[in-house]
Amino acid sequence: MSADKLVEGVLKGKRRSLARLISMIENEDPSADEALSTLYKHTGKAHVIGVTGPPGSGKSTIVARMTAELRRRVRTIGIVCVDPSSPFSGGALLGDRIRMQEHTLDSEVFVRSMGTRGHLGGLARATSDAVRAIDAFGKDIVIVETVGAGQSEVEVVELAHTVIVTDVPGSGDDIQAIKAGIMEIADIFVVNKSDLDGADKKVTEINAMLDIAPNMEDWRPPVLLTNANSGEGIPELVDKIEEHMKYLHESGTLETRGLKRSREELEKLMEYKLTRELLTKLQGTREYDEAIKKIAERKDDPYTVAERLIAEFLVKHRE
Amino acid sequence: MSADKLVEGVLKGKRRSLARLISMIENEDPSADEALSTLYKHTGKAHVIGVTGPPGSGKSTIVARMTAELRRRVRTIGIVCVDPSSPFSGGALLGDRIRMQEHTLDSEVFVRSMGTRGHLGGLARATSDAVRAIDAFGKDIVIVETVGAGQSEVEVVELAHTVIVTDVPGSGDDIQAIKAGIMEIADIFVVNKSDLDGADKKVTEINAMLDIAPNMEDWRPPVLLTNANSGEGIPELVDKIEEHMKYLHESGTLETRGLKRSREELEKLMEYKLTRELLTKLQGTREYDEAIKKIAERKDDPYTVAERLIAEFLVKHRE
Repeated sequence: MSADKLVEGVLKGKRRSLARLISMIENEDPSADEALSTLYKHTGKAHVIGVTGPPGSGKSTIVARMTAELRRRVRTIGIVCVDPSSPFSGGALLGDRIRMQEHTLDSEVFVRSMGTRGHLGGLARATSDAVRAIDAFGKDIVIVETVGAGQSEVEVVELAHTVIVTDVPGSGDDIQAIKAGIMEIADIFVVNKSDLDGADKKVTEINAMLDIAPNMEDWRPPVLLTNANSGEGIPELVDKIEEHMKYLHESGTLETRGLKRSREELEKLMEYKLTRELLTKLQGTREYDEAIKKIAERKDDPYTVAERLIAEFLVKHRE
Repeated sequence: MSADKLVEGVLKGKRRSLARLISMIENEDPSADEALSTLYKHTGKAHVIGVTGPPGSGKSTIVARMTAELRRRVRTIGIVCVDPSSPFSGGALLGDRIRMQEHTLDSEVFVRSMGTRGHLGGLARATSDAVRAIDAFGKDIVIVETVGAGQSEVEVVELAHTVIVTDVPGSGDDIQAIKAGIMEIADIFVVNKSDLDGADKKVTEINAMLDIAPNMEDWRPPVLLTNANSGEGIPELVDKIEEHMKYLHESGTLETRGLKRSREELEKLMEYKLTRELLTKLQGTREYDEAIKKIAERKDDPYTVAERLIAEFLVKHRE
């Protein structure tokens, strides 16, 4: 399907067009960029919520409950589940997805999973493009949920306006969250499974960390208790999300972040496109394979070869 | 200090020169590339061992014990601890490092920590360069140990010849390891804390996963039990490492992987250098800030702007 047709379909609210566009994004189809380029001016309206936290902290259930609550408040929703899959785990996470099924029958909710294909940076970029497509499609809220809570997930949720970091009572997991550097990006903390022992202690611990956190803006991340299984605490969570949205608008933070995000995105896009242009010229040529062999044999070094190939590439544009 | 002096110091076995070079690598000092370029032909001799696994699986203790055993076998050793630190965790991991202190007094063991600075890809690259510097310095073995076990850690240990994935009895963690995609890169599995309940069960589980693993080469990753605290199982682990080294040499896998690694490294270097060249030209100019502002305001889209700026950059080399 042509990019134009796809754009038309997305803007008309056709779910199949949106689904197809996201597949094209995943497959790095060049037409996807063309479509996204046209759709761009229709974006920037959706509020993007990122949800991350250690496995087992109930992220999927929280997202399902949040979705139900947001629907009650007449918001339309897109959900992107970012799932760095592996040949070992194929389908292992289906259980989580099943909980979302009640929503997949609701035409105002669009759900999509994205897996790791190829390069890590590729996943962050694909997710960002998928969120953009859903934004153009017209959803009010886009929720990006990660499966794990590593540094790669941080990169993925950084695109969100409001980042929710989930945790559960118990002391093993928090250290991990700290190590992964996800604490710093939280706008709202959720301690889920509030029925478990140590829930209040975990809230106190997170608050204690926030007390010593550097660079806190005017928004101090609240620490909420939820029990996603029963639904307890979910309306309060959604209240906080709306409060955070309001804060972003009124404080001008939204604008500052928007500029920062536009800069980062532009630079990543240029890195990607420029590198692709160079590699397309090199890959598959005999000279390139020879150059690599020489490096492997220590007859040449990669630093010098990189400089040389770049210089040659830039000069070729002179001809 | 000039790159030449530094290279001389490293090749003469001066620890201070090596330490300084690694600091320069961390700070992305351009002289580091110059030094590494000269040192490159002196590399390729060290066997690189990557150790990764969930937090709490005893990686640091295993590495300390492995080091002692390797020293007994008269090997010289470099250790790089990759530690994605965060403003919240400053110094929190010191405890782990203290266990290595017995070795820091041994002049045949060089220990170095590397933290996350800036971009994620930057850490993988810096680690790879640090390993190279230690290789040129003349250590027989370089051990790269990660603190966590996420996708970023996978990127870091992928440079190793032999990847050890650690785990502990209990069912929570393994799912996480699978999700992070670290199972696929293991050459040797270690189930540590063999004194805990469920150790044998964990070994069986990993073996069951290996039974259904696709693309297994001739080397089937062995699953070993260790108790790093008591030292039990460590000599057997080092035996397996040496067996794997031998396998890599004899099967030709070392050569194939060497070519693959050279290609990946060259491409990453070119991506980095080419992008830096472009961004150096753009950043700080008024036109560039204006372009970003227009994107943020949806008056222009990043895809088109990226193409335009790249075209302009390439054309400028014509003049």
